[in-house]
Amino acid sequence: MIQNKITFHKVDAFLISSTYNINYVSGFPNFSPFEREGFVILVKDKKYIITDARYTESVKKDTSNFQIVEISLKNPLEKILENLARMHKIKTIAVEEANLTVKEHKKISKYFKNIVDFNLNKLRSIKDKEEIEKIKNACKIADQAFEHILTNIKTGITEKEIADEIHLFVKRKGANNSFDSIVAFGKNSAIPHHQPTDTKLAKKDIILLDFGVNAQNYCNDMTRTVFLGKATAEQKNAYNAVLEAQKKAIEQCSNPAKTGQSKIKIKASKIDKVARDYITLHGYPTIPHSLGHGIGLEVHEAPRLSPASSEILKPGMVFSIEPGIYIPGKFGIRIEDLIVLEKHGYQNITHSPRSLTEL
Amino acid sequence: MIQNKITFHKVDAFLISSTYNINYVSGFPNFSPFEREGFVILVKDKKYIITDARYTESVKKDTSNFQIVEISLKNPLEKILENLARMHKIKTIAVEEANLTVKEHKKISKYFKNIVDFNLNKLRSIKDKEEIEKIKNACKIADQAFEHILTNIKTGITEKEIADEIHLFVKRKGANNSFDSIVAFGKNSAIPHHQPTDTKLAKKDIILLDFGVNAQNYCNDMTRTVFLGKATAEQKNAYNAVLEAQKKAIEQCSNPAKTGQSKIKIKASKIDKVARDYITLHGYPTIPHSLGHGIGLEVHEAPRLSPASSEILKPGMVFSIEPGIYIPGKFGIRIEDLIVLEKHGYQNITHSPRSLTEL
Repeated sequence: MIQNKITFHKVDAFLISSTYNINYVSGFPNFSPFEREGFVILVKDKKYIITDARYTESVKKDTSNFQIVEISLKNPLEKILENLARMHKIKTIAVEEANLTVKEHKKISKYFKNIVDFNLNKLRSIKDKEEIEKIKNACKIADQAFEHILTNIKTGITEKEIADEIHLFVKRKGANNSFDSIVAFGKNSAIPHHQPTDTKLAKKDIILLDFGVNAQNYCNDMTRTVFLGKATAEQKNAYNAVLEAQKKAIEQCSNPAKTGQSKIKIKASKIDKVARDYITLHGYPTIPHSLGHGIGLEVHEAPRLSPASSEILKPGMVFSIEPGIYIPGKFGIRIEDLIVLEKHGYQNITHSPRSLTEL
Repeated sequence: MIQNKITFHKVDAFLISSTYNINYVSGFPNFSPFEREGFVILVKDKKYIITDARYTESVKKDTSNFQIVEISLKNPLEKILENLARMHKIKTIAVEEANLTVKEHKKISKYFKNIVDFNLNKLRSIKDKEEIEKIKNACKIADQAFEHILTNIKTGITEKEIADEIHLFVKRKGANNSFDSIVAFGKNSAIPHHQPTDTKLAKKDIILLDFGVNAQNYCNDMTRTVFLGKATAEQKNAYNAVLEAQKKAIEQCSNPAKTGQSKIKIKASKIDKVARDYITLHGYPTIPHSLGHGIGLEVHEAPRLSPASSEILKPGMVFSIEPGIYIPGKFGIRIEDLIVLEKHGYQNITHSPRSLTEL
C-alpha cells in the first residue's frame, strides 16, 4: 500500500490535509472537501488520523492500522501537534503546500522546525488495477446513464430536467454525480461550462451533455453532443472535425507500441497538439481549454494534457481526451472519452457511441 | 453594496479567492469550491474578475461593473497579476490567508511587495434583509421537505432512500441540498455525522434527519429526530432534555430586550453554555460538537456558538442552535433550528414541529 511508496529520507513526518489524499492513504472518504475536518500524520512506524468526535466512530469503522486522535475542547489541534512533534521527535515535516492554507501553515510552524512541500500528484496519477476497475465501473454507469437519457430527450424538456434525470439515474445505481452536469441546448452549447437552466429543448436544437459518475469514490467524466432532428451542414462539419481530432489524439496513445518501443512514453503536450492543430487547421477557433486531464479520486488530477504541460504520460495513467469547437452565439460541440494508458497501448473505457446521432 | 463596506486604508488592493466570497462581492456563484477557477481583485476605483474562457461568458451575464480578465495560454495568471500590480501601483495587497494555499501565496509574493491577511467573516456574519429573506425561503423549502418525508417513513425503507427522497423533493422545488443529508436509523443515530447506508428501518427505530436546503445560493440547515412507534422512557427523557436545552438556549436570544437594553449583545459562548450545562446537569454526556454555527452562503460560517468562541452575537446574525445527546451503541437525538437575531429579540425561522413525534 501507499506507506511503502512514501519515503522518509530527509523528512520525519508527512502531514496530509487534502480530503482526497486522506482518502488515498487511509481509505476514509468522508471528510468534507469544503471544510477542514481531519488530518493524517504519517511517521516512520505509525499512522495517525486527527479528527473530532463527529467522525471518530466512522473513521474507526473505515480504516485499519491508524491511530485516531480526537480533537476536543480539552485536546485542541495545537496540543495534538505539539505532543506528536515531541513524541516522535519530528523536526522536519512535509505538508501539502498546494492544499494547506497560509493561516494553517502559520499555526503549524509553531510546532515544527522545518516545513517542506510535498504532493501525491505523481503517485496518484499512476493507478493500480483496483483503481482502474473502479474507474471502469464508474464509466459503465455513465454509459448506461447516457443510453437512458437519450430516451428522455424530447422537445419541451428543460436543461435542468435532463440534469436531474441523469442525477436520479446515477443515484439509483448506487452512485453519485462526480460534478454538476453540464446540459446545454442550442446556442448555450457554445459556453463550454454552461450551467443547466430552464431553457426548453426546441426542434432542431443541438444538445451537449457533459456529466460524470462517482462510484466507490472514483470518478468518470464524459461528454456527448447529439442533435434533435437533422444537423445542419455546418454542424456536421464541426462534429466530424471534433471527432476526427479526438480519434487522432487517442491514436497517439498506441503509436509507441507500433514502433516497437518497450514502454509507452508520450508527452502530454504532444497529444494536446495533435487535436488542437487538427481543429485550427480546419479553420475553427482553437480549443479554449486543455485537451484533457487525469481522473481518479478527483475529477481533475494529474496529468494535464495541455500545450503548457511538461508531463510524460505513463502506463497506469487514466485521462480524458475532450476536444471541442465552440462558435459563440451559434453552437458548441465536445466529445470526451476516458483513456487508460497501458504498457503497450491504451484502452478507451468510455463505450457510448460517438458517431453523429440525430434523434 | 459590499464595495462601500470594504475600506482601503493601508491596503492598495484585495485579492479574493474563496468561491463564497467571490459570490458575496460579485454575485457570480458558479466557481467550483473544489478547484481554483477564478479570483476577484478590488482596487479603489475598479473591480476585476480573473478567470478562463470556460467562465467568461457566464461571468459577463451574472455580474455588473466588473472587468473580466481572461486567463489563457498567452495571458497566464502570473502575467495578469504583474500587469495589474503595475497599472494600479499595488504595493500592499490583502489576501484571504484562511483560503489561499501556501503554494499560491508563494506565487503571488513575486508581484506584490507586502501581502497582508484579511477575511470577510465579520462582514458576512451580519446579513441584510435580502439575505435573510433568501435564508427564510430555504428554510421554508426544508420545512416542506420534512413534512413530505414524514409521509415516506415506513419499515423497510433504507437510510439512503430517505436521503434520495429528500434530495428529489428539494430539486423539484428548484433548490439543492446544502450538504449531504444525514439519515440515521436506530443506533446509527448515535454517530453525529452518520452517512446514510442501506440499513433498513425497523419497527421501533429512532430516526435522525439532518439536512439542508440551498436556494438562491443561501443555505438552510435543520435536524429533527422522530420515532417509529412508541419511544422508550429512556428515549423520551433524552428527547425532552435536548428540546428543553434548545429552548433555554434560544430564550437567551431574547433576554436583553426584556432587560431593556437598547441592542442585543450576547456572548456566543454563553448560549452554548446554557444548553451544554442543561444536558450535563441531567446526567447526559456533554454535546460532542458546538451548539451552533452561523449560516448564509456557506452552511458553516461565522459566528460559532461553542465554549471556546469569543464572538459576540449581533442583530443580523443567522445561526443554528442544535444540542444533541448521543448514547453510543444505543441512540442519538438532535434538534436544530435556525435563529435570526434582531435588534430587540429573535426569530426562529425553522417552523417544523419539535414536539416528540411517534409515527
